[in-house]
Amino acid sequence: MATAAMKTDVSKDQAEVLAVIDQLGKTNHDKDASGFAALFAADVADYNLAPPLSHRGINLSEKQAWFDSWEGPVEVEARDFEVTVSGDVAFCHGFMHMKATSKAAARLVSFWMRSTLHLKREAGQWRITHSHTSVPFYMDGSLRPAFDLQPI
Amino acid sequence: MATAAMKTDVSKDQAEVLAVIDQLGKTNHDKDASGFAALFAADVADYNLAPPLSHRGINLSEKQAWFDSWEGPVEVEARDFEVTVSGDVAFCHGFMHMKATSKAAARLVSFWMRSTLHLKREAGQWRITHSHTSVPFYMDGSLRPAFDLQPI
Repeated sequence: MATAAMKTDVSKDQAEVLAVIDQLGKTNHDKDASGFAALFAADVADYNLAPPLSHRGINLSEKQAWFDSWEGPVEVEARDFEVTVSGDVAFCHGFMHMKATSKAAARLVSFWMRSTLHLKREAGQWRITHSHTSVPFYMDGSLRPAFDLQPI
Repeated sequence: MATAAMKTDVSKDQAEVLAVIDQLGKTNHDKDASGFAALFAADVADYNLAPPLSHRGINLSEKQAWFDSWEGPVEVEARDFEVTVSGDVAFCHGFMHMKATSKAAARLVSFWMRSTLHLKREAGQWRITHSHTSVPFYMDGSLRPAFDLQPI
């Protein structure tokens, strides 16, 4: 699999941020809640797919329970992330594809989502201070989440 | 109404970015598609509530048609935006409350969404280069958008 950090036309700082995105993929694949949480600032403002509007910090036991709700690895692949770095802050946005088999529903879940990340560097270490992940929904009256979209 | 730019404990740069957020509110209220679009970079990557995953640039006629689908003003109020500025780039995230009366459904729509914005300053003018707006959805099997959430 091509990884985000394999891009060659980026600065050293940008490559470090892309390596964090790759670690998101690896820790999801490995269902490693501690490794996943270590990529985030302790007080990260996490706007994810589930309520509430904002989750403050990564809850380790909730994350592990979520990992355990899937059969086998959780595959999260990043695409089209362009990173802007200015001093010790960085931001980027792109698409992430998730693919995993739900234990409860006994079926493969596979969809694209949008992801925006803000990062801060402290003592040489980039950590995610804000994450916004979402799926749009159809405005056709159904209001169902648009799980069938592809990046253009 | 308290406006984002009325915050006093912010730098001049931060105040300028908060003023852009206030202009989002004003142009929505006034249903001013041109004024709204002028707040964005021409090639803004807009992840909004409706498909596709990303909209490139603001489509003026679509935006005006959207404004015209509401009876009276579209009220969008920003809350809890904290702005980080580094050189000529800035990013922020917070909540936006939308309230407007749908012509088609003849009813008041009122809900909170999450908003993340990236901005760039060129020739002294801040413009939004990326906007990510979303509502989470319930993971109770219904997958209905969570329009009934409040910021904590």
